[in-house]
Amino acid sequence: MAPPAVVDLIRRKRDDQRLDSPEIDFLVGGYARDEIPDEQIAAFLMAVYWRGLDAGELRDLTASIIASGERLDLSGLSRPTVDKHSTGGVGDKVSLILAPLVASCGAAVPQLSGRGLGHTGGTLDKLESVPGFRAALSNGEIMHVLEEVGCVICAAGAGLAPADRKLYALRDVTGTVESIPLIASSIMSKKIAEGTSSLVLDVKVGTGAFMTDLGRARQLAETMVQLGEEHGVRTSALLTRMDEPLGLAAGNALEVVESIATLHGSGPPDLVEVTLALADEMLSLAGIVDDPAAHLVDGTAYGCFVRMLEAQGASGDWIPPRATSITTLSAPASGYLQRLDALAVGLAAWRLGAGRAKMGDPVSATAGVLCLAKPGDEVTLGQPLLELHTDDPGRLDAARDALGDAIGIGPEPPDRAPLVIDVIRQ
Amino acid sequence: MAPPAVVDLIRRKRDDQRLDSPEIDFLVGGYARDEIPDEQIAAFLMAVYWRGLDAGELRDLTASIIASGERLDLSGLSRPTVDKHSTGGVGDKVSLILAPLVASCGAAVPQLSGRGLGHTGGTLDKLESVPGFRAALSNGEIMHVLEEVGCVICAAGAGLAPADRKLYALRDVTGTVESIPLIASSIMSKKIAEGTSSLVLDVKVGTGAFMTDLGRARQLAETMVQLGEEHGVRTSALLTRMDEPLGLAAGNALEVVESIATLHGSGPPDLVEVTLALADEMLSLAGIVDDPAAHLVDGTAYGCFVRMLEAQGASGDWIPPRATSITTLSAPASGYLQRLDALAVGLAAWRLGAGRAKMGDPVSATAGVLCLAKPGDEVTLGQPLLELHTDDPGRLDAARDALGDAIGIGPEPPDRAPLVIDVIRQ
Repeated sequence: MAPPAVVDLIRRKRDDQRLDSPEIDFLVGGYARDEIPDEQIAAFLMAVYWRGLDAGELRDLTASIIASGERLDLSGLSRPTVDKHSTGGVGDKVSLILAPLVASCGAAVPQLSGRGLGHTGGTLDKLESVPGFRAALSNGEIMHVLEEVGCVICAAGAGLAPADRKLYALRDVTGTVESIPLIASSIMSKKIAEGTSSLVLDVKVGTGAFMTDLGRARQLAETMVQLGEEHGVRTSALLTRMDEPLGLAAGNALEVVESIATLHGSGPPDLVEVTLALADEMLSLAGIVDDPAAHLVDGTAYGCFVRMLEAQGASGDWIPPRATSITTLSAPASGYLQRLDALAVGLAAWRLGAGRAKMGDPVSATAGVLCLAKPGDEVTLGQPLLELHTDDPGRLDAARDALGDAIGIGPEPPDRAPLVIDVIRQ
Repeated sequence: MAPPAVVDLIRRKRDDQRLDSPEIDFLVGGYARDEIPDEQIAAFLMAVYWRGLDAGELRDLTASIIASGERLDLSGLSRPTVDKHSTGGVGDKVSLILAPLVASCGAAVPQLSGRGLGHTGGTLDKLESVPGFRAALSNGEIMHVLEEVGCVICAAGAGLAPADRKLYALRDVTGTVESIPLIASSIMSKKIAEGTSSLVLDVKVGTGAFMTDLGRARQLAETMVQLGEEHGVRTSALLTRMDEPLGLAAGNALEVVESIATLHGSGPPDLVEVTLALADEMLSLAGIVDDPAAHLVDGTAYGCFVRMLEAQGASGDWIPPRATSITTLSAPASGYLQRLDALAVGLAAWRLGAGRAKMGDPVSATAGVLCLAKPGDEVTLGQPLLELHTDDPGRLDAARDALGDAIGIGPEPPDRAPLVIDVIRQ
């Protein structure tokens, strides 16, 4: 039979008719092989943005994206595999703590990550503030580190879901990023291709998150959980709040320092709470009974972290670099800190040099924002609230602008909503 | 001020927010100058397909398409200018008769046309079946023929609305053709750029037309009339039926022959009715009081036709070419011919060689379908109903397949709906 005409498939989706599995594979495979031009897939993506995809179409789209590359086989490992993916938030250094923590409980955690873009930092960017750390590992190295240490945090290779890279770059310039099925297929195709048996998603909701609306965040979480299960990956999702930075640090080396403190049992309470909730869920999916909180104080999680760094080329006895310019912002009034806006802090850290505007830009290891108080704390007029770290004082004005009215102080303590809003399981 | 980011404009239209005039001009002009890539305009066009354009956006889009090229200045002519555009139908040779007919009443008719694609023929393809006829004229030649003869039928030059050509080619491959504002801006930008003072649109509705739904055809007509008036062109539209072929002939030379017969006063009634209704409307817009019906019998309209052909390089004493293979299809029953499906006849003529599948393909001068009876006629079993003309008998099977059950015969005469459904004026 002749292959379908691309324009007919675009028109079908435009007219809200469903596409079957070979039709979707024809589009995705043809695009991955450069046989279908950008403009046709751009129109198709906008039609998908408009009409959505039903569960079957989404499963097929994700399968075709996975099939555009290799799928890692981790079945040779002696430990159960379980990974975690966060939709991204300000100060979200959870992966740095969670991977060694869950590994210290006996699981293998294959954290294949991306780099940061915009106001939320990237896990690899944070670890690369440690001299010598190598994010690019071969498949053989990944297997070796996983077996020997129990966790690896490295870059997803070009062989994994290459169609997703092409589709994502196209969505970025065509206004088709913010589509739940397209987001879900992008995230899940990479995680499924990575070969993990189980996966916990941290879907963040709030001013500092990609999703600001709880209903849409829940829909994304449910969609991804279903998609994972359909592809044979045990998947669950936590919905967690991202209205203020997680922990106190936003910036690459600043977050590594805070992660090390947390792995030594002295992390900020919100960071510890989210990390342990995710660890419990991961261990449950992996079928491991253990108390991860204990491993934050007995040194075993930290031990895994150091061994992972060493296995990936970095030194365990690292002296964190420090920015040459540190500017303190003080409390403009006395009272309770009611609000510390995550988006504003994330943008300020970005402006100070911690993030990149476009892929390929360098990031500063030292730049970022350190919060000296968190919402709920009582503060007095003039008390230091934020430290702005940068090696380029020319960036301070932009960072101050980004902070705008990020800080709210009032006479009463704020209402505190729970950090973990819900857990979605199939 | 920095130019807007293209992706932001796509997102605005996607989210049903309106774009202002400089924003639309930025997109259209940037695309015409190859500064904005196909994939971004493809996504924008799908968003426009989805969300539509309001009257102001449509006016601005059309203005930007016109501004991408030159606008002819016909004000130096001694006669009032008036043109006609048809959305296309099977056997629609009206332009060939109408242009000289209205010229014979004292108007100047600048028919800048395109070529046919698919099952409806193109006016230039029909005239090019006359040896020597030149469709490509310079602006100076256009002015000269208009002044001397009163009508010209030629190709729209590359300088007119070049953005439309690029946009149309993109719409064709991205499933964004069937959008009323995009159709309206494409048609009207070319007609406004052509420089005519008045314009009558023939919006065809029915099985053989681009628009099969009366409501959508009316919406298109109203949209185009408003667009013309907003750009200073007196514009009205006739909604006419296209459920059966117009006249008896569908095919290039076959239609020229039928046009010549009509210019001699012996045209088929339906073709004469539509032609005169359009002529009356054109003369009314041009402010000319005359009786066009008289010019179909007194030879003056035919005289204009011959002078136009001669001015464009063709001979007035033309002997029509005839296909080498003519196959007759007979009535399968006795009774009244109730149905002769326009789309099926158009597809059959196309398969026989009269039309092209893609731009640049050659067309046959002789191929086509000649109808020997029309709905309403009484027929007897075995009576010849259709002639299939072609120089390539290998095409006959495909033509027969295209005809399928195009013919309906029953015991009662069919209900006859009026040919001219409505006239839309502002």
